[in-house]
Amino acid sequence: MTKEVFGEQLKKKSEEIEQMILLYLPKVEGFQKKIMDAMHYSLTAGGKRLRPLMMQESFFLCNGKKRELLEPFMAALEMIHTYSLVHDDLPAMDNDEYRRGKKTTHIVYGEDIAILTGDALLNFAFETAQKSFSFCETLEEYKQVAEAMKILAKKAGIYGMLGGQVVDVEASGKEIPLSYIEFIYQLKTSALLEAALLIGAILAGADKERQEKLEKAGTLIGFAFQIKDDILDISSTSEELGKPIHSDEKNQKTTYVTLKGLEQAEAVVKELSEQAILIMEEMGFKDSFLCMLFQSLIDRRK
Amino acid sequence: MTKEVFGEQLKKKSEEIEQMILLYLPKVEGFQKKIMDAMHYSLTAGGKRLRPLMMQESFFLCNGKKRELLEPFMAALEMIHTYSLVHDDLPAMDNDEYRRGKKTTHIVYGEDIAILTGDALLNFAFETAQKSFSFCETLEEYKQVAEAMKILAKKAGIYGMLGGQVVDVEASGKEIPLSYIEFIYQLKTSALLEAALLIGAILAGADKERQEKLEKAGTLIGFAFQIKDDILDISSTSEELGKPIHSDEKNQKTTYVTLKGLEQAEAVVKELSEQAILIMEEMGFKDSFLCMLFQSLIDRRK
Repeated sequence: MTKEVFGEQLKKKSEEIEQMILLYLPKVEGFQKKIMDAMHYSLTAGGKRLRPLMMQESFFLCNGKKRELLEPFMAALEMIHTYSLVHDDLPAMDNDEYRRGKKTTHIVYGEDIAILTGDALLNFAFETAQKSFSFCETLEEYKQVAEAMKILAKKAGIYGMLGGQVVDVEASGKEIPLSYIEFIYQLKTSALLEAALLIGAILAGADKERQEKLEKAGTLIGFAFQIKDDILDISSTSEELGKPIHSDEKNQKTTYVTLKGLEQAEAVVKELSEQAILIMEEMGFKDSFLCMLFQSLIDRRK
Repeated sequence: MTKEVFGEQLKKKSEEIEQMILLYLPKVEGFQKKIMDAMHYSLTAGGKRLRPLMMQESFFLCNGKKRELLEPFMAALEMIHTYSLVHDDLPAMDNDEYRRGKKTTHIVYGEDIAILTGDALLNFAFETAQKSFSFCETLEEYKQVAEAMKILAKKAGIYGMLGGQVVDVEASGKEIPLSYIEFIYQLKTSALLEAALLIGAILAGADKERQEKLEKAGTLIGFAFQIKDDILDISSTSEELGKPIHSDEKNQKTTYVTLKGLEQAEAVVKELSEQAILIMEEMGFKDSFLCMLFQSLIDRRK
């Protein structure tokens, strides 16, 4: 697949996923329609729908057939990702007024509604994921969906993304050692990618070995992705990036780059992504769209 | 059962439930231990554990046998109730510094950690509830637990408690009609009581008719409970109540009492609770602990 063809496919797939997710959002109606409106606003603020896309690709690579089981989890994972951004942007957190060029949720709806919107998206993610059960016919399928629920909750929570955010918040403005950085990156960024790849595999009925390999690929790619973020924050221009650069410096954040320098950070990104791609090769997935997606996350310039 | 015996049983049951819930909380350990500590702090700030207690009583009245299926949901529901209090108390929301005589979570841990603690409790509620699946042996049990998950998510979310909070936040400081008040009370307060009674019945394998009756009893008792709250806010003393009185006036809140007056509010509480108790009678539950619990919520002076 050429880079051009990949780019077109990525665009098409992302758009299709966005349309699918919108169908799972609540209708904007009733006394509580403001929160539904704010949920829509927050979820349609752009983005490549990377996590549901990874879940879908993992599912198909593992020969998943019953897409009805998968879609609710794809939508749920994107809702969880979105809630974390809404709460991250709050004045008491990162205090950001813009995200991807659009005003953040609390700027548009007020801080109280933004807090409740994050809560609503997190809660609705589980409300959405459980819809998979209504398509289960066999005991085996119930077990798979229950296992997928377990992974979704775990990777989003204090042993996953949320745990990473907490340590990140605490570390802000402090000198922290490399072990902390690794912990934060693995939880804050890798956890939801691991969830995406693992849930795709589980719902496709993949065996344990394949599940573990895909999870490991998620860990590596997430880590590489986050270091790449640090690198771009220093070396890119704010025009290219579409958001302010040097934000880590502004927030006095210790990052992989401030600890290890640009050159070593670049080398580690390369090494991690090579490891991830090796795992994909072992499974016979080297020429897959998913593997090209991994590569594109590492090569990106924004 | 005399009132005295009931009071002793209530105390004993509440304490047992508290101990059980603590076993489901995460261990305070690892890099992210601050959030675990804050979760413990928030969850052990007192309270009668009313919701898990109702769930348990509903389960046993419906001849539930397998307690392992029930306990994760009891813990989960209390976590959801607690997260809503933590977020409710935030400066951008009700801005309360004390709850039940203890400093609120954001006063002790800071606003950022309090936001994340609420998120963590909500997420962990689903992480906890799904543990029930690990005790499922038959397809029937998987179906029951999946149905209980659905109810938990729905009653906590925008079509339940959270939806009520959103409308409540929007209505603050405004003149609102009775239809709004009824909507807010049913969602904000009744929804989690409905969830408690309904999930208990579902996990006990009760039939649809019994499920619906218990849910309806929850609606009525929740509504009565909330109007009673409004009444006590006006007629009680702050000493007796353990929190500041006239808080509705301070927050310029329209309540059932400000709209209808004390006398009619008292009459409605009586009518609603009589209806709830009639439903219990129809099911043969009139002399149950649960029915006495309903009565005690209406008769309370604080």
